[in-house]
Amino acid sequence: MAGATRTTMHPTARSRSWWGWGWADAHPDDAECTAMGALLPGTLAQPLPVPRTADLGIGRPAVEVPRSLAGTVTSDPEARAAHAMGKAFRDVVRALRGRPGRVPDLVAHPEDDREVADLLEWAGEHGVAVIPFGGGSSVSGGVEYRGDTHRAVLSMDLTAMNRVLEVDRVGRAARIQAGVLGPALEDQLRPHELTLRHFPQSFEFSTLGGWLATRAGGHYATARTHIDDFVQSLRVVTPAGAGASWRLPASGAGPSPDRLFLGSEGALGVITEAWMRLQERPVHKASAALAFTSFGAALEAVRAIAGSDLAPANCRLLDSGEAALSGASQDGSSVLVLGFESAHFPVDTRLEQAVDLARAHGGRPGGSRDGGQDAVGAWRSAFLRMPYLRDGLARMGAIAETFETAATWDRVPGLIDAVRTEVGEAALKATGHPALVNCRLTHVYPDGAAPYFTVLAAGRPDDQVAVWDHLKEVAGEVLHRHRATITHHHAVGRDHRPGYDLQRPEPFALALRAAKGALDPHGILNPGVLLD
Amino acid sequence: MAGATRTTMHPTARSRSWWGWGWADAHPDDAECTAMGALLPGTLAQPLPVPRTADLGIGRPAVEVPRSLAGTVTSDPEARAAHAMGKAFRDVVRALRGRPGRVPDLVAHPEDDREVADLLEWAGEHGVAVIPFGGGSSVSGGVEYRGDTHRAVLSMDLTAMNRVLEVDRVGRAARIQAGVLGPALEDQLRPHELTLRHFPQSFEFSTLGGWLATRAGGHYATARTHIDDFVQSLRVVTPAGAGASWRLPASGAGPSPDRLFLGSEGALGVITEAWMRLQERPVHKASAALAFTSFGAALEAVRAIAGSDLAPANCRLLDSGEAALSGASQDGSSVLVLGFESAHFPVDTRLEQAVDLARAHGGRPGGSRDGGQDAVGAWRSAFLRMPYLRDGLARMGAIAETFETAATWDRVPGLIDAVRTEVGEAALKATGHPALVNCRLTHVYPDGAAPYFTVLAAGRPDDQVAVWDHLKEVAGEVLHRHRATITHHHAVGRDHRPGYDLQRPEPFALALRAAKGALDPHGILNPGVLLD
Repeated sequence: MAGATRTTMHPTARSRSWWGWGWADAHPDDAECTAMGALLPGTLAQPLPVPRTADLGIGRPAVEVPRSLAGTVTSDPEARAAHAMGKAFRDVVRALRGRPGRVPDLVAHPEDDREVADLLEWAGEHGVAVIPFGGGSSVSGGVEYRGDTHRAVLSMDLTAMNRVLEVDRVGRAARIQAGVLGPALEDQLRPHELTLRHFPQSFEFSTLGGWLATRAGGHYATARTHIDDFVQSLRVVTPAGAGASWRLPASGAGPSPDRLFLGSEGALGVITEAWMRLQERPVHKASAALAFTSFGAALEAVRAIAGSDLAPANCRLLDSGEAALSGASQDGSSVLVLGFESAHFPVDTRLEQAVDLARAHGGRPGGSRDGGQDAVGAWRSAFLRMPYLRDGLARMGAIAETFETAATWDRVPGLIDAVRTEVGEAALKATGHPALVNCRLTHVYPDGAAPYFTVLAAGRPDDQVAVWDHLKEVAGEVLHRHRATITHHHAVGRDHRPGYDLQRPEPFALALRAAKGALDPHGILNPGVLLD
Repeated sequence: MAGATRTTMHPTARSRSWWGWGWADAHPDDAECTAMGALLPGTLAQPLPVPRTADLGIGRPAVEVPRSLAGTVTSDPEARAAHAMGKAFRDVVRALRGRPGRVPDLVAHPEDDREVADLLEWAGEHGVAVIPFGGGSSVSGGVEYRGDTHRAVLSMDLTAMNRVLEVDRVGRAARIQAGVLGPALEDQLRPHELTLRHFPQSFEFSTLGGWLATRAGGHYATARTHIDDFVQSLRVVTPAGAGASWRLPASGAGPSPDRLFLGSEGALGVITEAWMRLQERPVHKASAALAFTSFGAALEAVRAIAGSDLAPANCRLLDSGEAALSGASQDGSSVLVLGFESAHFPVDTRLEQAVDLARAHGGRPGGSRDGGQDAVGAWRSAFLRMPYLRDGLARMGAIAETFETAATWDRVPGLIDAVRTEVGEAALKATGHPALVNCRLTHVYPDGAAPYFTVLAAGRPDDQVAVWDHLKEVAGEVLHRHRATITHHHAVGRDHRPGYDLQRPEPFALALRAAKGALDPHGILNPGVLLD
């Protein structure tokens, strides 16, 4: 499968930002940053300059690969800088402050399983840490090296493995290489009239392998919310050998092999390809937005809808702050955005039934004549623009970040209140300025929901990372006290380790450690992620 | 939680058969057995006698427990005989022939986690194998000891842990002890107007813990087919310690801890309780049966329905032989039984849409005036009676057993043909008489289906087990060649090990072995299941 070039299938003239989210040219300019900063008292008067890799003083790599691997590997400083970290707020700020995470010695772009295996073998023999890297959009410290026990660090960028290799139209599935980015994946499926319909916020800048390794949250707000449910089989290359599960619609033969590697975050092996279950493109769609005066009543409405058989594809509840921030509502209402879709049957009745349930709990169908399409559209635009604005705010010295969780319904209202109160108070105390702590529900279940929080606050000059780390610690304590998961779909990485270690049941910890020891005997795979 | 008595919550005067399926008084009598045998040329003229435990010569146990555990354990021969094996055809025949599996030395009935842990500790110290035992309905050799490397064998019967401990009405979930049998579980949920709706064929005689440990196939024919999807959290006691996952509606924090123990078949630990997601009782129901002249066309119809958004609760396709056997049709047609249910909204439209899809593929709505209710009812009665009839046929020296699998749609037609042909030919060759090999689909998916086969054939006097083992080996080869799973919901146990070992990807095998070593360092837990 190895080819002559190491480019993606859809080359583009646009270039990616090495230090911030997404496309370099999509970032707010200095004037926009300044205007945004003016909305948050206590931020800087001028934006921090866009950082340059030349200022990082990236030296020569500590190791060299043998000639047989030389074509797979680069030591180019630009490439290394771009692979030093993910795209969390703390990563962006560290780059802005000229103190990025450990820059890897080498970046590899393997093109097939054999090259992945050869790189792992060489790394194991030479004590080189290997950080599997997809789109690099981790927001939990999943793709950087922290520590000093390895001789060198190699970032293994999988994006040269970016093809749909096989399509089963009858069974609606495809064999797909793990390094494909979202848009290129959908481009290759479109001629077959199929779609994965996995659209995380990071869709443009994340890969199938990344989604699988982190159990990404997907398009569907109910029922099949995580990528896990769309996996038919996985191929994994580990230092101890490679293998693939069979393509099966379902099986009861022992514990699911795939479920051990889903969420393994590169610590157990490198996922190189997967057979994924696909969808036909929906032709029937219907959506609506409803406003609620009371957030508590809106929660009840969402619980009723989640507990029904209606299974909306979209069921996103924005609290008043989040609705205002995205332009979905300016009158202090909470807004529920509902969407239904089907490739087979009209969905209008289901939408009506869901709207009726929402109305029974006090929801008012969207004020606009189009039944709330304004709110739906405003939300969608803001959703995709949000990470760029976050980086603009970071340049103003502000705190601007999100985190998410999930809990059972009995705990959801108290949890959301506690996060708002305690993180808000901690921010005020740390910065001397009031903070905005907004909440939305991104995914909902009959038995609970996934609240997603946005924090906007002034920073403390030269100490943005410390302030954020402190707020995150406070948030982690609240989540733990309310038995809410440390992450619903942002993964554990390194940033969530304290919460994860407390949450993980001890028998599973023992089993996971043993599995890691068996599959990665030299401890080279993404060290520090999930396990020490 | 320990109490004074060690009985189930719903004592009954009926007694369980120690050697065959279910209730002793529900077995066909000698005359019925003889009549059934007459339908299969080459079987015995008279039924084998019902076996008696007194004839087994059960001796004294090889070990004694310390006084502190004495109240938990019995060495009563009747109890030991009833815990010697599961209820596969080969188990029944071995009992009928007076050659049951290794009778355990002791049977324990722990009442709480502490007693489970104490028993495991004692067993580990003394080299005693521990076989976790729920309802004992395993049809894959999951609850017997085979081997000679342990000093003694203890069957750990969990049925004294049979209570619903807590109900969350808002989040529709309950904390349930693993040893509860199906009917007692539903009895305890009924006052809360909730139901687990998990109705395997073994419902009366199997436990929640057994369903979880074997990834049982459930009530729903589509979408949420396995018990796995209804698990909110698990509590597990292992020789290396105990722990529970948090109650969460969903999480993305590392690989799912629960998924490692789901399907672990007692080899990694003892599941002692679980928070399970529940359903409201359906009030809207609609069902229909359709007849098809061509089984191939029926497969296409089922694929269309499985690939739609309709999600029928029941979608069971019987081939002509299976339809005739169950009384659903006598004219050589295949029969598709469809059922929809909802606690919230009428389901008639969905049934109509599914029936329309079936008609488009040549389905003829059921001949009877009630829209196929005769066929639905006939099937249901036959379904529950089937295991008893199987045991009656076993007494006539016949071969009568089922096995099941799952495969992607592209492989399903060829797989079913090959099983019919090759198992049929092997049976003819082995017995000199033609065999019946019927097929039904029990669970269906957008990407594939789970075919379930029934084999009826004459046996070879005194060699029923060998003939069956040979047929099963032939079937296993066909499944392997077609990359169909060795089991969709009957578990691996000991009988499916050859197929499982070939199917399991090697990296997962390494991880599982390591996990077993960490959690069960003395190798006492269900030895031989999943791993050697």
